[in-house]
Amino acid sequence: MILKYDVIVIGGGHAGCEAAAAAARMGAKTCLVTMDMNKLAQMSCNPAVGGIAKGQIVREIDALGGRMGLVTDATSIQFRMLNRGKGPAVWSPRAQCDREKFIWEWRAQLDRTDNLDIWQDEACELLVENGEAVGVETVWGVTLRAKAVVITAGTFLNGLMHVGKRKVPGGRCAEPAVLHFTESITRHGITAARMKTGTPVRIDRRSVHFEDMEEQPGETDYHGFSYMTAPRHLKQLPCWTTYTNKEVHDTLRAAIADSPLYNGQIQSTGPRYCPSIETKLMTFPDKDQHPLFLEPEGEDTNEMYLNGFSSSMPMEVQIEALKKIPAFRDIHVYRPGYAIEYDYFDPTQLKPSLESKLVGGLFFAGQVNGTTGYEEAGGQGLMAGVNAALYCGGSNPFVLKRDEAYIGVLIDDLTTKGVDEPYRMFTSRAEYRILLRQDNADARLTEKAYELGIATRERYDHWLKKKAEIERIVRYCDQTNVKPRDINDALERFGTTPMQFGTTIAGLVARPQLSIEQIASALPTLQAALQTDDARQAEIVEAAEILIKYKGYIERERLVADKMHRLEDIHIKGHFNYAELHEISTEGRQKLTRINPETLGQAARIPGVSPSDINVLLVLMKR
Amino acid sequence: MILKYDVIVIGGGHAGCEAAAAAARMGAKTCLVTMDMNKLAQMSCNPAVGGIAKGQIVREIDALGGRMGLVTDATSIQFRMLNRGKGPAVWSPRAQCDREKFIWEWRAQLDRTDNLDIWQDEACELLVENGEAVGVETVWGVTLRAKAVVITAGTFLNGLMHVGKRKVPGGRCAEPAVLHFTESITRHGITAARMKTGTPVRIDRRSVHFEDMEEQPGETDYHGFSYMTAPRHLKQLPCWTTYTNKEVHDTLRAAIADSPLYNGQIQSTGPRYCPSIETKLMTFPDKDQHPLFLEPEGEDTNEMYLNGFSSSMPMEVQIEALKKIPAFRDIHVYRPGYAIEYDYFDPTQLKPSLESKLVGGLFFAGQVNGTTGYEEAGGQGLMAGVNAALYCGGSNPFVLKRDEAYIGVLIDDLTTKGVDEPYRMFTSRAEYRILLRQDNADARLTEKAYELGIATRERYDHWLKKKAEIERIVRYCDQTNVKPRDINDALERFGTTPMQFGTTIAGLVARPQLSIEQIASALPTLQAALQTDDARQAEIVEAAEILIKYKGYIERERLVADKMHRLEDIHIKGHFNYAELHEISTEGRQKLTRINPETLGQAARIPGVSPSDINVLLVLMKR
Repeated sequence: MILKYDVIVIGGGHAGCEAAAAAARMGAKTCLVTMDMNKLAQMSCNPAVGGIAKGQIVREIDALGGRMGLVTDATSIQFRMLNRGKGPAVWSPRAQCDREKFIWEWRAQLDRTDNLDIWQDEACELLVENGEAVGVETVWGVTLRAKAVVITAGTFLNGLMHVGKRKVPGGRCAEPAVLHFTESITRHGITAARMKTGTPVRIDRRSVHFEDMEEQPGETDYHGFSYMTAPRHLKQLPCWTTYTNKEVHDTLRAAIADSPLYNGQIQSTGPRYCPSIETKLMTFPDKDQHPLFLEPEGEDTNEMYLNGFSSSMPMEVQIEALKKIPAFRDIHVYRPGYAIEYDYFDPTQLKPSLESKLVGGLFFAGQVNGTTGYEEAGGQGLMAGVNAALYCGGSNPFVLKRDEAYIGVLIDDLTTKGVDEPYRMFTSRAEYRILLRQDNADARLTEKAYELGIATRERYDHWLKKKAEIERIVRYCDQTNVKPRDINDALERFGTTPMQFGTTIAGLVARPQLSIEQIASALPTLQAALQTDDARQAEIVEAAEILIKYKGYIERERLVADKMHRLEDIHIKGHFNYAELHEISTEGRQKLTRINPETLGQAARIPGVSPSDINVLLVLMKR
Repeated sequence: MILKYDVIVIGGGHAGCEAAAAAARMGAKTCLVTMDMNKLAQMSCNPAVGGIAKGQIVREIDALGGRMGLVTDATSIQFRMLNRGKGPAVWSPRAQCDREKFIWEWRAQLDRTDNLDIWQDEACELLVENGEAVGVETVWGVTLRAKAVVITAGTFLNGLMHVGKRKVPGGRCAEPAVLHFTESITRHGITAARMKTGTPVRIDRRSVHFEDMEEQPGETDYHGFSYMTAPRHLKQLPCWTTYTNKEVHDTLRAAIADSPLYNGQIQSTGPRYCPSIETKLMTFPDKDQHPLFLEPEGEDTNEMYLNGFSSSMPMEVQIEALKKIPAFRDIHVYRPGYAIEYDYFDPTQLKPSLESKLVGGLFFAGQVNGTTGYEEAGGQGLMAGVNAALYCGGSNPFVLKRDEAYIGVLIDDLTTKGVDEPYRMFTSRAEYRILLRQDNADARLTEKAYELGIATRERYDHWLKKKAEIERIVRYCDQTNVKPRDINDALERFGTTPMQFGTTIAGLVARPQLSIEQIASALPTLQAALQTDDARQAEIVEAAEILIKYKGYIERERLVADKMHRLEDIHIKGHFNYAELHEISTEGRQKLTRINPETLGQAARIPGVSPSDINVLLVLMKR
């Protein structure tokens, strides 16, 4: 049987769901192929979305008209804004979610998406004709033909799970692996390698001694992940913290010879920033304790997730070790932690659009590109979906720059530098992080998304209204003067220096010790100016305050970014035969040949390409 | 790693969930082993519970303190009482359910059950020592030890799915099969064979032309499945009906050589009363149409289930044929229908307690005993769970007689007669069906369940209160006289013969044309007597009315049943060496040896054992 589409997405995880929804919203007739419609966007590991830098990505996905933020808001059971103590450049929203409701909310989102079909089946063969991806064949014997194919297979390709000496093939606990698809990709010159990730035990709430743990409540905070303001409606639940101890470590160390990570059974590299507990012990032998976070899996289940105790040690060792922690002395687990090895594909073989350089119309997103994290997957998925749809229409790709979005940083890092371990986003990976804030993803991206057709008119209008309100407040603060006598009492009350001369409200807001809310409490006219009839008032005031308070930093970073744009705007792809450019270093020649960068900016970021190599290229371009 | 329990249940379907919950409620330390905690009690086929005779089983499960009725009520999206036009002996409740909410409601039920652990893993080896089941080993390398093991593996044992020529191993679409467990059971003399079942395509609601179908709404009826009155709170949705036609049949017939059922690819027998569409065509070649029912899969999904179109024809044939139906001319399906073959075990090797005759402490329930249907599975599961718990405590088994419950009929049929095709319950299988009504399962079973400890005190009190109200109404009707002048006007209005002499209200209720409600509308004193302060008033009046109206039938059937009890009370197991009883027929000797019946009643129901064989045994017993 042959089914025909514009875009086929292979895999229904976080990348696949965003990809399929985005392509369909762009007007492409889209089919999402998933082995199990009941596990769409399953959070395979931690039941949480967001976190440092990741939260910003989810805000960006939302600003672009993606779905992860909406689904997170609808299913959140705890919200926190991380890094509140630091500057707003690194504020990062994070939510615990109800794992099952998350799946069903995503399913409902996809169900409501026009142009999108779901096909429950397993892809077993990529179809390529004349160097172009034209579809897949499936295990049930269907031929799905399309103009573009997006691969978002997560950990399923040749997935192999490890617990101690036990090795069980599978894409995820309880789900079969996909055993024959990788070959049909690598046959076309695309390089596959292996990575590893892992997940901890799942614990029965009834077996935990909560009196021996510290409660970590959520925040009653006005933020959501979506700019479309969805109030949280599920019960908000606490997490719990405790620590490993010397006895725990001794138990694990005594069995380290049975660890697949340390006895040679697993050769591939796991995520550096989500190490297994045994890796933590071996990497930090001096530490006597490591923190653990016990997180609820849902609003009304006993299942809990033990963040920080990922492991592939033999099951009895995992449990014996846990029992050495007072809160877990009577622990019952539902299943052991396990490691999983899977195939990924070298992302330096991708264009910035996430299209393969080797096979036209073939896009990759998510863990198959060597990343880790739902948010990184979702961001790539959305971009791959958009670009697959643009490809079908013969349009230019949509690429985000490094000063526009974490998603831009992510994809540029992947395609320029490649990966040798699972790639996770951090704020430190972004050089323009004061520009890439959680509060302004809509300012950065929504207009672009509306022009592309992935953001709705409603979302765009929503943003325009917010934008006008922000500008009004900033203008008011810039243009309104305050006399010392009107504010000095309050300033003293707030413990800050009184004014000697008048200044604008903006001048006051710029003081690091003062919040705009404090100032407004002393100035009824400002209080009135901050009022809006918008449900997002708190967010609007926050955005305005950040623009005023950090104006200097923002403008300075903007200048640097604009300077860099000059390099970004110099397209060099196709201009050089690098092998013949004897003016540049041998390593530079090799790396430039391998990556074949789109712009001089990208060339400059390739590891092994030196500033003098770039100068040579710049000179040559000017000729 | 070794984990120790009283009872282990292998499999988390309808049988396994009831078994585990029942054993745990009986006080046994219980572990439910399931491959996927996110698919507990998944409705693998039709998203509906109940129906003819099956609805009665669910009421019985509920009256016994089981969970299926509660879960059904909580997740129902359409309710109907089937057979309303016939006598109350065959009234059968049926509900469409939200497939996903059903899973999560079951999960919540199990989460709230004390003494019950869940272990997510796959059993790969049954452990037997000295002829007793002592546990299982799992794929992850755990040894679960127990005093009793309940096998409820459904279609997972060596499951093999068929669509046209494609054969895919699996326990269910998207789920792996269990490939190594059967051998560890048959090694002990237990006989395994193969059965087949099937399921239809799942359809995208958006592709259906509803204007070309007939709507089938639910009923606003006061019944639920549980006697613990849970009001329906989900949106109530309609089903839709249409018919196949000659073109559909021609399309299917033209491809019959590619049907796994008709080209020899599938050898095992499927359910007679849920045939595939191709089987219907071949069995009824003269019929030009067959009815189809399009059923919603949930409150807010586009997925719909096409009841009546089960098939394992090649996918393109299934879809091409469907497109010949006006409502489906633009059909999009999520996945094809498929057939599945799986291992089952000969149920005549089971005692009436569902314990194996060959391996002590080993119980079987559900599809592994050769039945079909969630309700049949649930009923067996509950009984196996109870008996496994009783076995651990060294107590006598709990067995329901054929005049006590459909569950009794079911298990007696299975263990006495065996199966050569998937066994489905019908009212016609019950010889005492006027006793086994949907309205009186609590009267039949709740007290027993309370004594066993599976029904709560609350449930028992609930029943006692209802019982007192029913008896009060029956007494009032029996003892209260009506004068012709008080009722004759009304009787004429109702189109029934006026009375010449006075009678009791019961005498009036006994008239087939009159309902107790009608009579009450004319007699304010009866109206008042029917009032109760019980939320279940309508059910109470219904129960009383049935007892009055059908008193004669009920008493007559009770007499017959009591007569039969004399044979049921004569225990013969262990009394005879049948091989040496040359007074009885050769076939009788062989069958009696094979089944080794518990009672003379069971002996009499064995196919091939004649009434004169029974007389011989009776005479021998009297000696």
